[in-house]
Amino acid sequence: MKTRAAVAFEAKRPLEIVELDLEGPKAGEVLIEIKATGVCHTDAYTLDGLDSEGIFPSILGHEGAGVVVEVGPGVTSVEVGDHVIPLYTPECRQCKSCLSRKTNLCTAIRGTQGKGLMPDGTSRFSYKGQAIAHYMGCSTFSNYTVLPEIAVAKIRKDAPFDKACYVGCGVTTGVGAVVNTAKVEPGANAVVFGLGGIGLNVIQGLKMVGADMIVGVDINGDKEEWGRRFGMTHFVNPKEVSDVVAHLVELTGGGADYTFDCTGNTVVMRQALEACHRGWGESVVIGVAEAGKEIATRPFQLVTGRVWRGSAFGGARGRTDTPRIVDWYMDGKIEIDPMITHILPLERINEAFDLMHAGESIRSVVVF
Amino acid sequence: MKTRAAVAFEAKRPLEIVELDLEGPKAGEVLIEIKATGVCHTDAYTLDGLDSEGIFPSILGHEGAGVVVEVGPGVTSVEVGDHVIPLYTPECRQCKSCLSRKTNLCTAIRGTQGKGLMPDGTSRFSYKGQAIAHYMGCSTFSNYTVLPEIAVAKIRKDAPFDKACYVGCGVTTGVGAVVNTAKVEPGANAVVFGLGGIGLNVIQGLKMVGADMIVGVDINGDKEEWGRRFGMTHFVNPKEVSDVVAHLVELTGGGADYTFDCTGNTVVMRQALEACHRGWGESVVIGVAEAGKEIATRPFQLVTGRVWRGSAFGGARGRTDTPRIVDWYMDGKIEIDPMITHILPLERINEAFDLMHAGESIRSVVVF
Repeated sequence: MKTRAAVAFEAKRPLEIVELDLEGPKAGEVLIEIKATGVCHTDAYTLDGLDSEGIFPSILGHEGAGVVVEVGPGVTSVEVGDHVIPLYTPECRQCKSCLSRKTNLCTAIRGTQGKGLMPDGTSRFSYKGQAIAHYMGCSTFSNYTVLPEIAVAKIRKDAPFDKACYVGCGVTTGVGAVVNTAKVEPGANAVVFGLGGIGLNVIQGLKMVGADMIVGVDINGDKEEWGRRFGMTHFVNPKEVSDVVAHLVELTGGGADYTFDCTGNTVVMRQALEACHRGWGESVVIGVAEAGKEIATRPFQLVTGRVWRGSAFGGARGRTDTPRIVDWYMDGKIEIDPMITHILPLERINEAFDLMHAGESIRSVVVF
Repeated sequence: MKTRAAVAFEAKRPLEIVELDLEGPKAGEVLIEIKATGVCHTDAYTLDGLDSEGIFPSILGHEGAGVVVEVGPGVTSVEVGDHVIPLYTPECRQCKSCLSRKTNLCTAIRGTQGKGLMPDGTSRFSYKGQAIAHYMGCSTFSNYTVLPEIAVAKIRKDAPFDKACYVGCGVTTGVGAVVNTAKVEPGANAVVFGLGGIGLNVIQGLKMVGADMIVGVDINGDKEEWGRRFGMTHFVNPKEVSDVVAHLVELTGGGADYTFDCTGNTVVMRQALEACHRGWGESVVIGVAEAGKEIATRPFQLVTGRVWRGSAFGGARGRTDTPRIVDWYMDGKIEIDPMITHILPLERINEAFDLMHAGESIRSVVVF
């Protein structure tokens, strides 16, 4: 079949909208009609050539929502007409990781996914006879895409696609880091470093679970309004204090119970750890650092009770937890609408990257 | 009153056995007759002048056991005749830390303890009219010593002093890191870096809780026999493999569920983290690093599910958990006797430091 898609032919070049060939689903796979897709920093990271493992030509996009239009042989968990979110972190429920009950990082298709291929080692996309790579196992910048059954989360049909798609990455990454990774308890004090989309979702996750003090930290004072919009109780601009760690420790009465790095900056990651309360404060690294950068601290910080951990896809098991987050949105427990600052047709997808680079969007969504 | 004690008059000089003046217990304090005390690396660290906050002259020693011989006004939790272990980590049960239920690092007397003083800001020891500092709130290298009531753990009377004293630091630090800090579950795979006294106690803690694979790592091949003696199932000498992390990841089938650094070497601490299983492996820093040294890793290690934490005094609440560890010893769940390699009278205490520096002891115990 044919599908319209935005292709990344090479790094550092705008995406091109073309009509591609798409093979239908094989055994255990499903064909999805993508209705909406967010444009995320990770897509830009790859397109900008910063990911040393980036593959071109490829179809980027990993934050989508759509409808199942065809299922391959043996597919049992979804059927034609189901509304789904593609999962870059699948959930096979059979690998060592899934069975561990300790992580969401399913390894069932990790090898091929990293190579831009479907689990059978081939691509379903081609253009003028040339194979086009899949991206993060999703390739949601295509009107139609194929995914393994284990990599789609079935969601309720009344959830709007142009909001639900954001649950496919940003919302789950932020809210999930609070709920699944840190398991923040009511009454806790927390500090969130970086008030971009992830940071705002961490903030609303903290609000949902009943945190007392929700401190936002950003070097851009304009972010304060955004933070307060979603539940932030205090704002700190590191440029306006002499020692941000000491300031935060004092503000939180000895250090935060939980801190979250949503910046990807390894210097900030250290500050986030050291702003934790002695004895029990836990710091969660969410941001993705530049290649080669390392985090460091004195081991005394750990020996005196601080914990350093990380979160990928909010610690959410894709098929189990993602639909619940859509429910939370539909139930009004979390918000998405105000974060979707721009909605664009596929033809204008490159504008979404421009808006992001200019810091003018929280999230742009492309609709088909 | 008078007491016989080994005094550290200054750094890098042998201890001197002298007769001191000791003031009796004030309100909330108890006078303890020390019957036995271990000589620990931390005492040597201070005596060797490596601790920038070391205070002289002082009476070192923090791993003791003895009998309450007098109680000050208002003391209710112990009485004359009780057998006790002095606690360098007290348990007031009233401070923010104790009430958090998340840490054992009671802060009730932290300020004065760090200055070598009793909670009222004075010392009970003096020699020829000159005040002699307390050490880690214990000063067990003295036949008699004074401690706050909140810093003594009451233990059963049938526990031999020359074994129970080791629970005052080494045993609890190792076994507790497994039980309280990492909370290792039956069937887990674990790696222990450094097979000194702490490492051996981590190993026997792992054995007690039913770990499957207990891998010991040490650059000294002679330690293998010691490790196996306490439950180690595999031994790795980093000098005999090209890449110790890769070797351990393969040996443990993907990485360890838990790793423990008992070396104090920050390079090893990084190896311990990176030898953890993707998705859930937790690494516990127990060793105390040299001043100024830092730990480092790529944040990707955390984002993909590894957790970095630390443990002080084995995460044990002094008055609550220490007596239970004595019980475990008396019940045969853990061993202490074979680790006490040397027993010496106070007059020969400097030999204990020599044996430690020469690597010829697991633990030397001084008896009064």
